[in-house]
Amino acid sequence: MKEVTIGIDIGGTFTKFGCIDINGKSYNNGVISTDQYDDIHAYIKDLHDEIRKCIQSANEELDIKGIGIGAPNSNYYTGQIEHAANLNWKGKVPIVDIVKQYFRDIPVLLTNDANAAALGEMVFGNARDMKNFIVITLGTGLGSGLVVNGQLVYGHDGFAGELGHVMVKEGGRLSGFGLRGSLETYVSATGIKRTAFALLADTNEESILQDFSYRELTSEDIYNAAMAGDNVAKQCFEYTAEILGKSLANTVAHTSPEAIFLFGGLAKAGDMIIKPAKKYMEEHLIPAFKNKVQIMPSGLLDQNVAVLGASALAWNDITQ
Amino acid sequence: MKEVTIGIDIGGTFTKFGCIDINGKSYNNGVISTDQYDDIHAYIKDLHDEIRKCIQSANEELDIKGIGIGAPNSNYYTGQIEHAANLNWKGKVPIVDIVKQYFRDIPVLLTNDANAAALGEMVFGNARDMKNFIVITLGTGLGSGLVVNGQLVYGHDGFAGELGHVMVKEGGRLSGFGLRGSLETYVSATGIKRTAFALLADTNEESILQDFSYRELTSEDIYNAAMAGDNVAKQCFEYTAEILGKSLANTVAHTSPEAIFLFGGLAKAGDMIIKPAKKYMEEHLIPAFKNKVQIMPSGLLDQNVAVLGASALAWNDITQ
Repeated sequence: MKEVTIGIDIGGTFTKFGCIDINGKSYNNGVISTDQYDDIHAYIKDLHDEIRKCIQSANEELDIKGIGIGAPNSNYYTGQIEHAANLNWKGKVPIVDIVKQYFRDIPVLLTNDANAAALGEMVFGNARDMKNFIVITLGTGLGSGLVVNGQLVYGHDGFAGELGHVMVKEGGRLSGFGLRGSLETYVSATGIKRTAFALLADTNEESILQDFSYRELTSEDIYNAAMAGDNVAKQCFEYTAEILGKSLANTVAHTSPEAIFLFGGLAKAGDMIIKPAKKYMEEHLIPAFKNKVQIMPSGLLDQNVAVLGASALAWNDITQ
Repeated sequence: MKEVTIGIDIGGTFTKFGCIDINGKSYNNGVISTDQYDDIHAYIKDLHDEIRKCIQSANEELDIKGIGIGAPNSNYYTGQIEHAANLNWKGKVPIVDIVKQYFRDIPVLLTNDANAAALGEMVFGNARDMKNFIVITLGTGLGSGLVVNGQLVYGHDGFAGELGHVMVKEGGRLSGFGLRGSLETYVSATGIKRTAFALLADTNEESILQDFSYRELTSEDIYNAAMAGDNVAKQCFEYTAEILGKSLANTVAHTSPEAIFLFGGLAKAGDMIIKPAKKYMEEHLIPAFKNKVQIMPSGLLDQNVAVLGASALAWNDITQ
């Protein structure tokens, strides 16, 4: 019998899952729709059936030691998804309790995707020997998971680690919550696009980016333009990295992590974002913190970190 | 036999100590000079002799369960005071090892004064039932101690929790480290004095504060002027609280504490600083954090929090 935990990643459109052993090896995996279910119970029933099928069709006999769920707006303490804008189920959804009805006597845990990514890094990735580190996920927005003393920081209410919403520019760009100057309005796939348009407005320089509409332009287009030598596109990365680096200096003053891991689309730009971010961070650190904190890509880039992280949430609970 | 821990507070001029039981009751206390000793060994020898005398002269027989030391630039992990500008002993001073030579078989722990204040709040003060909270000490500078999951946040290097050095104003006031816009250049006894001078420079309004030189003016003078109805002095508190509140909103996004305790001279201004700080913090929080986080005065105001906190450092280690 191979011991595995089930990692479940609930996205707005699809739900992915995998059977993962303690070394991060996947023994089987699957996917079902998320958004075709208006009824959470019908959804969990079908998800359960698919997971059972998946286990039965694996090449080895699998022993499920735990289930970890990563989902937006998730509360680790209550086991509830709370007011998730991108899911059909409104209000507070006690998903852990519902999953437990189908998988009796198996521990079930829930957290959000950025926290799951941090646990994935700790259990399977580059933070295996670290007790104090941070994972930043750069997607449409900016998510984060903070680890202190070897434990994920949930805070008193289960919602800690929302670095995308720290204010970095007084009176700056408008965020989804009506706040101004939030980090994720600058540092994210959307943020770098906003920067591209701000720079295009400001410059007289010719740029490949002038061919794109706001709706069309992606962070990948900006990356490709920068790689092709486009100066405005390069400035987009420099500016994004400057804001990220300064903000990370403030974060270091809070928890003094050994390393900060970047994950997600923008992180794939590698040195184009990491080197200047590191430079600006160092410039804004007090001497006690200088030349101590690494910024590096996640060790799980190009892997299904959401499923691995959810699995790690369960493994972390078992092995502690 | 009454079980106590010895709390030692090493300041630049004096070293204070006390024999404190688990309820925060002091059984005896004493003080020796700090700055008359150039030799750390002679200092610790005399400190030891004074502590022994203090124990012998107490009304009850005392059993020393541990020793906690609060000192500037202290590293909890290494037990060293590292490059403290205000102490005579330069470089790295292995003070825990030296103290252990005199108090054999007694656990000895070291941390900085703001961390000690946080532990004092947890063991003896208003955070006794809290697992996630923050203490801000408002003195000449701004110190902080962060508690997450019931543990003090030391970070990977022992220096976490330096909120006085987060940048709050791009290109703002110059700090001691040559950085610009650090929180403590606005929010501290020195910070509010700088604000007073900035406001006097900006206004045509008459103010009591116009009678003071920069060297003379204290935060207490500003407080007294504000209480007497001086409008500029009142604006000093409003501005200080605005910067504090906005910065605390960023801190809440990191660790989501249940409460933030203010300690030190400025904290004695009470509602004059706490009410507006709370208002500005709330305005800058995302909905997930709104109306959840209290800001309140330390439960140890007017007590010797430095000695209590150092004692709490030892008690916290014993009782865990």
